[in-house]
Amino acid sequence: MSRPSRGSVRDSKKQSRRVGNPQTRQTASSSLKAPYKPLTDSEVAAIHQASLDVLSTVGMANATPQILETALAHGCVIKENRLCFPAALVEDILAGAARSFVVHARDPRLDFEARSGMINLCTGGAAVSMYDHRTESYRPSMLGDLYDLARVADTLENLQWFARPVVATDIEDPFALDVNTVLACAAGTRKHIATSICSGEHVVRMQPFLDALAGGTGKFSQRPFCTVHATTVVSPLSFAADSLDVVCEAIRIGMPVHSQTGPQAGATAPAALAGTLVQCCAEGLASLCVINMLKPGYPVVIGNWAFVSDLRTGAFSGGGAEQALLGAASGQMSAFYGIPGGMGAGMTDSKQPDAQAGIEKAQTLLLASLSGGGFVFESAGMLASLLGCSAEALVLDNEMLSSVRRIGRGIEVTEESLSVDVIKQAATGVGHFLGAPQTLSLMETEFDYPQLADRASPQDWIDNGGKSMWDSATEKAKYILDNHRPYYIDGKTDKWLREHFPVQLVAMH
Amino acid sequence: MSRPSRGSVRDSKKQSRRVGNPQTRQTASSSLKAPYKPLTDSEVAAIHQASLDVLSTVGMANATPQILETALAHGCVIKENRLCFPAALVEDILAGAARSFVVHARDPRLDFEARSGMINLCTGGAAVSMYDHRTESYRPSMLGDLYDLARVADTLENLQWFARPVVATDIEDPFALDVNTVLACAAGTRKHIATSICSGEHVVRMQPFLDALAGGTGKFSQRPFCTVHATTVVSPLSFAADSLDVVCEAIRIGMPVHSQTGPQAGATAPAALAGTLVQCCAEGLASLCVINMLKPGYPVVIGNWAFVSDLRTGAFSGGGAEQALLGAASGQMSAFYGIPGGMGAGMTDSKQPDAQAGIEKAQTLLLASLSGGGFVFESAGMLASLLGCSAEALVLDNEMLSSVRRIGRGIEVTEESLSVDVIKQAATGVGHFLGAPQTLSLMETEFDYPQLADRASPQDWIDNGGKSMWDSATEKAKYILDNHRPYYIDGKTDKWLREHFPVQLVAMH
Repeated sequence: MSRPSRGSVRDSKKQSRRVGNPQTRQTASSSLKAPYKPLTDSEVAAIHQASLDVLSTVGMANATPQILETALAHGCVIKENRLCFPAALVEDILAGAARSFVVHARDPRLDFEARSGMINLCTGGAAVSMYDHRTESYRPSMLGDLYDLARVADTLENLQWFARPVVATDIEDPFALDVNTVLACAAGTRKHIATSICSGEHVVRMQPFLDALAGGTGKFSQRPFCTVHATTVVSPLSFAADSLDVVCEAIRIGMPVHSQTGPQAGATAPAALAGTLVQCCAEGLASLCVINMLKPGYPVVIGNWAFVSDLRTGAFSGGGAEQALLGAASGQMSAFYGIPGGMGAGMTDSKQPDAQAGIEKAQTLLLASLSGGGFVFESAGMLASLLGCSAEALVLDNEMLSSVRRIGRGIEVTEESLSVDVIKQAATGVGHFLGAPQTLSLMETEFDYPQLADRASPQDWIDNGGKSMWDSATEKAKYILDNHRPYYIDGKTDKWLREHFPVQLVAMH
Repeated sequence: MSRPSRGSVRDSKKQSRRVGNPQTRQTASSSLKAPYKPLTDSEVAAIHQASLDVLSTVGMANATPQILETALAHGCVIKENRLCFPAALVEDILAGAARSFVVHARDPRLDFEARSGMINLCTGGAAVSMYDHRTESYRPSMLGDLYDLARVADTLENLQWFARPVVATDIEDPFALDVNTVLACAAGTRKHIATSICSGEHVVRMQPFLDALAGGTGKFSQRPFCTVHATTVVSPLSFAADSLDVVCEAIRIGMPVHSQTGPQAGATAPAALAGTLVQCCAEGLASLCVINMLKPGYPVVIGNWAFVSDLRTGAFSGGGAEQALLGAASGQMSAFYGIPGGMGAGMTDSKQPDAQAGIEKAQTLLLASLSGGGFVFESAGMLASLLGCSAEALVLDNEMLSSVRRIGRGIEVTEESLSVDVIKQAATGVGHFLGAPQTLSLMETEFDYPQLADRASPQDWIDNGGKSMWDSATEKAKYILDNHRPYYIDGKTDKWLREHFPVQLVAMH
């Protein structure tokens, strides 16, 4: 693919067409017409009852003093040194939990609503390496990679929420890591961002930082553009004390929470998939309860990330059939609760963007997205069982997300779309539908047109260079990286941040 | 991968493990626990009513004299020179049509039942070229390729029905083509086979040939091991006279029928997907009616292959989101009728086995398989919008089919699988589930273990040669092609066939 030289008007138009205008081409939440339901209604009820049973009789280990005090005051009880949640209490909290809320972006045009029954597609993960497509190998991920991924995601119309996909392994100091992670994300995209934060104390120290990025003191809590991902549970059924502290401080500064648990069937959860769901739901509900006890109706996405172990090795596996089932079933449970739920899907165990990656990403992503849970994280860019990330994969997967959105939208059945008269006219007339008024009017709305996937004939494909989808994604990623270099932080704010915080990202001003 | 040398006991055990024993390792129809339903019940009813409306008011063009005579005697009417089917007649025929029947294989252990609500996975197609993985290009498909594909499919445990995936373009004479196609399939596999046949006259002439392969005069009709694929409709709403003749003669010799229609949304069917379904169902029901008028309750799979045109070019596209939706919706309509239905899915527009192929095959295959229609054709081996085939792709896709079967089986929810006690024991005890009795007992049944998809860590993957799934599939295909050389026709029969028919396949005796 030839590259336009910089500078001419024609080039700039071409560039805008190819990179897209991040402020206008973004997709909002997609509707979901017909959910895929792997469980019957009575099975959903049975899993829910078993979760309540586990919560009330087994409960959670390792509650922090602050959580213990709050929970006991709300009606929890201690049994054998574990915090147990009576079923009626859990049901009451579920009834009062936030069923929807606005997810804010620094650009208000990129806000969207969090609720179950929709399709919201997000990055996710904390990969520690980047896949280098030139050497076909992995290297440690750096702060610059995070900024690069953010600005690529900024142009991708199917991603709504940019959770930092990689850890900046070149930053050793934990506070500097937290600060620079948010900065690299915020510099690269004005979409909603998310990250984990090392400790509650860091959350407190970062409040002025977040306020500055939001436009001034007190501004962050008004339009919180950043969610904290908090793995509040260590499976099976134990709280993670540090994460609970993070959640407590996040609530104090008005930062939304994505509370995650990640039990692995066969390792940290039962090998029976139904049992993994029971435990996962219990763990997710425990976190939901704690957060709602601290602040009723607080905006939280419950990330019931039920995972799979390959029992031949005990290793995490992200792309198989059981993962696809668990993702969909977990989403179905969130839809049953009626609260925004999140799943990890779009994963692959492949180390490269091959057919395995395509199959595994598509099957896990599709079923999780169609479940009605609400959010799918890890939906783009990840490789190697979440250990690696790639800007090229992000670009490639964005097109898969478009297809998933189209499938979620379903088939419109109306008097008009049933097309009886259109059929009659064509069958008794010209014998085809090409150029028919209905065809022309539906051309743009009924069909999703891929840009990277090749639909040419074998000969045309060879004449065009015989490119794979990965080749095309690599070209597009390079074009974006070469041409889309935003720094969404104004000079004055950037200067202040650098004076008051250990900012390491090279400024682009 | 090192190859075992031929001949030793150890090698022969290794070979049997790697190639599989075709007679014992085959998968029967898979159960489908929870269908994916893109349409609501009232939408299904609306599509059905619109189809009946089209059949009774627009009807079908080009009925042959024999069909006209039979149809008019059964209550059809002629309107504006088209054969119309009153709604009550169609409903009566639907009520009396075969809801299930045995699909026979030459090896009775490979028989299975045809009905909706299951997952039956089959090859399909009539590609005219083979993808050569060494040159990464296409060449015309030959008779030898067909035999090779048959013997590879013979070892693949997830394929139940071998429809000839490629046309032997090296055979010019139409009758020789029909004869050798059946012979190459039957020589390579004892699974149920299928092919199209050029004319009704050929069907008649082939009866002794089919009888000989079945074991003697009159044997074929007792256990018909071969189905005829007949594209009985030219969309929109016109019969294909030659194919109707083939069907008439097939019924006469007791050969089961897979009656296909393949309307393309936007080209030979409405651009509105709902309208394409209406027309497709009308065309499928017209064929079902005709076949059941000729012989009530005859074993037939209704192949309502609703396809998609890329309206940018008008070309057929097999892998997109709309195709995934149409496949699932078509299957849902067959499940509504309660008769065995077939769809083309597992297709891709990619010319090579890349991420695009993985994504497109997985998304179309998964939703069509989960629809409950019954049969999925084209499920393995196809590339380039059905223009090309590959033994290596067949091997790779077989593993994807395993995953689809596991997903279809769903999540078992029982008192035991809910695992409340198992969770309690682990959470309050050792803190994990590795080695737990439940884990050990479910290890083989709850999980699908891929052989070609790589789940190793990045470093182990590199140490093992950094292979893609395609690399592994290519190695496995080579191993099968080198080592599994059946010729499932005994010497005496083969000699008789060669004396009486224009057999060109090189004998392996």
